[in-house]
Amino acid sequence: MDALAELRAALGPDACLTGGALEGVAHRSDASTTGRDLPLALLRPASVSEISKALEICHRHGQPVVPQGGMTGLAGGANCRPGDVALSLTRFQGVEEIDPVAGAMVVRAGTVLETAQNAARDAGFLLPIDLGARGSCQIGGNIATNAGGLRVIRHGTVRENLLGLEAVQADGTVLSHLSRMRKDNTGYDLRHLLAGSEGTLAVITRAVLRLRPLPSGIETAVCALENYDAVLALMNGARGQVTLSAFEVMWADFFELCGGRRLFAHTPPFAVIIETEGGGLEPLLEKAIEEGTILDALIAQSHAEARRFWEVREGALPEAHVNDIVNFDISLPTAGMDDYVQGCRANISAALPHARSFFFGHIGDGNLHIMVEVPGFADADVHDVDRIAYDLVREAGGTISAEHGIGTLKRDWLGHSRSPAELAAMRAIKRALDPAGILNPDKVL
Amino acid sequence: MDALAELRAALGPDACLTGGALEGVAHRSDASTTGRDLPLALLRPASVSEISKALEICHRHGQPVVPQGGMTGLAGGANCRPGDVALSLTRFQGVEEIDPVAGAMVVRAGTVLETAQNAARDAGFLLPIDLGARGSCQIGGNIATNAGGLRVIRHGTVRENLLGLEAVQADGTVLSHLSRMRKDNTGYDLRHLLAGSEGTLAVITRAVLRLRPLPSGIETAVCALENYDAVLALMNGARGQVTLSAFEVMWADFFELCGGRRLFAHTPPFAVIIETEGGGLEPLLEKAIEEGTILDALIAQSHAEARRFWEVREGALPEAHVNDIVNFDISLPTAGMDDYVQGCRANISAALPHARSFFFGHIGDGNLHIMVEVPGFADADVHDVDRIAYDLVREAGGTISAEHGIGTLKRDWLGHSRSPAELAAMRAIKRALDPAGILNPDKVL
Repeated sequence: MDALAELRAALGPDACLTGGALEGVAHRSDASTTGRDLPLALLRPASVSEISKALEICHRHGQPVVPQGGMTGLAGGANCRPGDVALSLTRFQGVEEIDPVAGAMVVRAGTVLETAQNAARDAGFLLPIDLGARGSCQIGGNIATNAGGLRVIRHGTVRENLLGLEAVQADGTVLSHLSRMRKDNTGYDLRHLLAGSEGTLAVITRAVLRLRPLPSGIETAVCALENYDAVLALMNGARGQVTLSAFEVMWADFFELCGGRRLFAHTPPFAVIIETEGGGLEPLLEKAIEEGTILDALIAQSHAEARRFWEVREGALPEAHVNDIVNFDISLPTAGMDDYVQGCRANISAALPHARSFFFGHIGDGNLHIMVEVPGFADADVHDVDRIAYDLVREAGGTISAEHGIGTLKRDWLGHSRSPAELAAMRAIKRALDPAGILNPDKVL
Repeated sequence: MDALAELRAALGPDACLTGGALEGVAHRSDASTTGRDLPLALLRPASVSEISKALEICHRHGQPVVPQGGMTGLAGGANCRPGDVALSLTRFQGVEEIDPVAGAMVVRAGTVLETAQNAARDAGFLLPIDLGARGSCQIGGNIATNAGGLRVIRHGTVRENLLGLEAVQADGTVLSHLSRMRKDNTGYDLRHLLAGSEGTLAVITRAVLRLRPLPSGIETAVCALENYDAVLALMNGARGQVTLSAFEVMWADFFELCGGRRLFAHTPPFAVIIETEGGGLEPLLEKAIEEGTILDALIAQSHAEARRFWEVREGALPEAHVNDIVNFDISLPTAGMDDYVQGCRANISAALPHARSFFFGHIGDGNLHIMVEVPGFADADVHDVDRIAYDLVREAGGTISAEHGIGTLKRDWLGHSRSPAELAAMRAIKRALDPAGILNPDKVL
């Protein structure tokens, strides 16, 4: 039998879709919109043993497999090439247990992030992972990309909230270490190796995630600021005085695009959403207004009003439609971030006069996002924009991916952040754990 | 030339000690006192290029190399077998830079932890890594073992404070990623793979460590408690009301051994050292006394008095000499820890009536330490005690090493915490990064 026939026999026809059955079910692309091809088949196993069986068959046949979660990634990491088989975890979902004593949740990889967040909240805990795609991204993808998001400043990236992990290796071997211990120095940390490896080393199936106490006294404000020095002054002042749970900065271009004028009559040069736990926001902002650090501030009077602020930051209601977007997700030294923005904007305008750039980010974590509209989306133009952005990142001592990962779209630029020796070590690890090279080929490396 | 002659030629005679020159300079054992042999040679390179050259020579000759830091480990991880060459990082030491804007320190691996702590404090920052061996342990060893210690409850283990890393691979290749970024998703996380790998995958040479603001309003108390339920009640109460920076529990056997009667007239069943930041300790303890949670408490009135409390916990001034110690460092679900202690103590007494056990630990992190005096230190007796302790750990769903690592002493028990599939994956990674198997052979795996 060939690989597809074996897969169909092992999983059943409902869990191995091919041909016409793929239309409307399988994805051509993640949220980067750069994928072009449907997979050869879409596998939808519903248990770890089915996932293991599917991988064992693919491994034996040398059949490439692309693990897929909620398809919300922006780096092309879950897109298929012609002939690839997609492995969706969507049918292996659900929160299996919440352990209130350990402060931990056992969750299946196919669970939608928001479902897991709600289960934690219903049990009186905070799942400290949150990002704009919460309604469709999946826990497995969050871990495979070491997702960042909106709570990193307070609780770290996904790996910092990952206690235990189960994954299936390329040959079907199940690696299970669903530890709930905070401290565990028993050999190499496979958990941290798999987190952020973007499905190239194993398929993540279950995780134990750390829960935190539900925060109390959440306060949210949006502030208008005159310049980037004021942004830094506000952040540094806040760090000494309050417990920051978010500090999100929008340059005027982004704020205007995403409906900022529903908040302030005139678009300020910078807008900051600041969220605190345990009180203290109002005195902080009063002092900042007195000292001239901020021009204006709105403190949310209700949860609904706070959501209105966040809708702007998350781009939920854009003022205009933007097409042909190239996304960037870079880390930079915080102090030099506005210099980077000005240089990047100027260089892009000089190279591509019709391109438009929008800047925003998790500045408290040193993480800047850029959306660049490249009309026509020609490969050469995209490459030019990439080169401008990444050359400046390298000059500034930053990294080409803070939280989105490498996928295919940043693969050619990985050498801007990692040395040939590091890339060789990564390739050696890849060969050791996936000798047939079937797991998400051509991604990352 | 043979390996030694090449090493001597490359490093110079002062950096390649052999024969009689080893006496009084080279170590037979780390702090576990289980090592018996001097190395064939002690290498003391003073730069990354010398470290690289030394490893390249050893790799070419298949010469085993044991990386050594401050020799304060308790798992035998830095001990040499006959014929091994020891590679000490002691001459590659010093804090290279403190970056106040990024909140980061660049430090060489041979730097003594306390030296790095002091440099951070002089610059107005906290280096959030601290353990009893601070005066002699080295940063490289702290990272190679992913050390825990006294601040984990507040700031996590070493890996959670590790931003960037430089290391030399077995063949001399330098892997350098001295990033200061908090978020960095650029390929596999080699930093987390090397942290905790105990010198078996590469020799750590430099690190970028995260600094935190100097804590203010530190308060320290030692409390006497009647039973373990009271310990849990105090901890849970404290978590809701104050910022805990340490929560250390001593069972009566340990407290008495380490001079606890200098603090309380009668040895209580449990003693807890509690340290808080930002105030609130006194009302917390008053309430706990009113509610009957604690029997008595002493709040330190000075830094010197707080040090006196800590001297008990760190065993600086023991009441009696204890010989032939077997050390344990395990993680357990916090709620079941006293059940474990009672079972372990009873089983050890039944098997070895002359053995004495002393229990203490970082309970807030689920980490228990045990010192067992095994008179005579016979291999069979040590093995019996190991089996008793580790069988109970497996039953309780804990791990056999929380922070000390595996080394040689826990290697035979690693299967109690990790599956055959996980061990096979670790071996595959070891072969991929050290194909000749020269780095710290027979350790961990």
